[in-house]
Amino acid sequence: MNSVMETIVGHRSVRKFKDIDLSKEQVEQIVQAAQSASTSSFMQAYSIIGVTDKEKKKKLAVLAGNQSYVENNGHLFIFCADLFRHSIAAEMEGKDISASLETTEKFMVSVIDASLAAQNASIAAESIGLGICYIGGLRNNLPEVCSLLNIPERVIPLFALVVGYPDQHTEKKPRIPFHHIYHENEYEQDMDTYKQGLKEYNKIISAYYKERTGNARSDNWTAQMTGMLEGKSRLYMNEFIKKQKMDLR
Amino acid sequence: MNSVMETIVGHRSVRKFKDIDLSKEQVEQIVQAAQSASTSSFMQAYSIIGVTDKEKKKKLAVLAGNQSYVENNGHLFIFCADLFRHSIAAEMEGKDISASLETTEKFMVSVIDASLAAQNASIAAESIGLGICYIGGLRNNLPEVCSLLNIPERVIPLFALVVGYPDQHTEKKPRIPFHHIYHENEYEQDMDTYKQGLKEYNKIISAYYKERTGNARSDNWTAQMTGMLEGKSRLYMNEFIKKQKMDLR
Repeated sequence: MNSVMETIVGHRSVRKFKDIDLSKEQVEQIVQAAQSASTSSFMQAYSIIGVTDKEKKKKLAVLAGNQSYVENNGHLFIFCADLFRHSIAAEMEGKDISASLETTEKFMVSVIDASLAAQNASIAAESIGLGICYIGGLRNNLPEVCSLLNIPERVIPLFALVVGYPDQHTEKKPRIPFHHIYHENEYEQDMDTYKQGLKEYNKIISAYYKERTGNARSDNWTAQMTGMLEGKSRLYMNEFIKKQKMDLR
Repeated sequence: MNSVMETIVGHRSVRKFKDIDLSKEQVEQIVQAAQSASTSSFMQAYSIIGVTDKEKKKKLAVLAGNQSYVENNGHLFIFCADLFRHSIAAEMEGKDISASLETTEKFMVSVIDASLAAQNASIAAESIGLGICYIGGLRNNLPEVCSLLNIPERVIPLFALVVGYPDQHTEKKPRIPFHHIYHENEYEQDMDTYKQGLKEYNKIISAYYKERTGNARSDNWTAQMTGMLEGKSRLYMNEFIKKQKMDLR
């Protein structure tokens, strides 16, 4: 296994960091990696906000569901889907492209572009000995996040990425078995086989939860997902995205 | 620069491949890398379809806008946002979680999860000497793609990833300058500074297009984006996503 594969496969989320800030060079290196990702039709439909202001970090930690590592880390990146840049580009060219920017298709492009960039940033950070964690909890309170960071319309903060020198050792959770996540030539049509795959995975996850050091519990994947998804969360999102003039039609 | 950063920063899209299929081990390695990415609340809300059937590849190449490299490559992966798995998990648990799965929030989770996985797959492939290209053109005709691959509801093919041994040398396009893509503590509020950033980038891109070997042209980024986005594309997407029972509310 080469060192790139080792970095990728060795990923674990880190939620406790040493009190050391990333250097300006490290931040630039991570952003350069992010920008090297593929982008749909060269749109580069994202922005990255680095938050260093201590008060803002503290507020973001609360908004993200009281997650202390959003405040305490080496650097806090916020990845945003961004079509605002394109509306300004069109304004500079004396045109109005709102109708195009407001489609579901372009919303998808911006979410995909931002995510590809973020994953490159993650791998780059991990390759230089840093730990990372994605913070989807940022989506708990996007109107407040947008107001705190002066986010304009056509921009959606998707998640934060906290980065820093790890101060904990975490375990890697086993993923869905290959033959269930990967389909050949068509989506699995046989529902017995499909459910069998999930049952197999349940066994793997039960064993993992039972045996892991610290925080052992009795659970499996289908029960965990069902329990979590029975609670409907972030129901304001549809309206919020539309208020930002994205995903309208 | 370490070898991971070199791989990431060295990325170029490749659209012409040698006639060599990826081995089963390579496919598994790439999928393993994809699965090692972070995933929102452990949802792993994606599936990967590997297409090896020659007839299907030929049809997909036409559906993606007559792109020959969708047919001719070492392996064709299709990355799908997938919430079907969770509906089956809930069924196995005797519950109905449709209301949750049909939210905009969960649609976003599935698009983000699939994209993070795909970018890991890309970097892994490039680290073993393969070239890659994302094929957003797959979204030209999703109903036909879904029917060809027997995709169930709650699953959206987002893009293809073609992988193979490169048979061309391509250049790296300069990205948006750091100080324009990266904002500190708040989104850039001064529109003169903002537009200045785009003007600077226009100069860089104009010079790149003028000087590049083969396919030289006179263009800049704001004009290119405006021209492309004046044409509204894939207008069926909003309705299609809803028909797949995603992003409904």
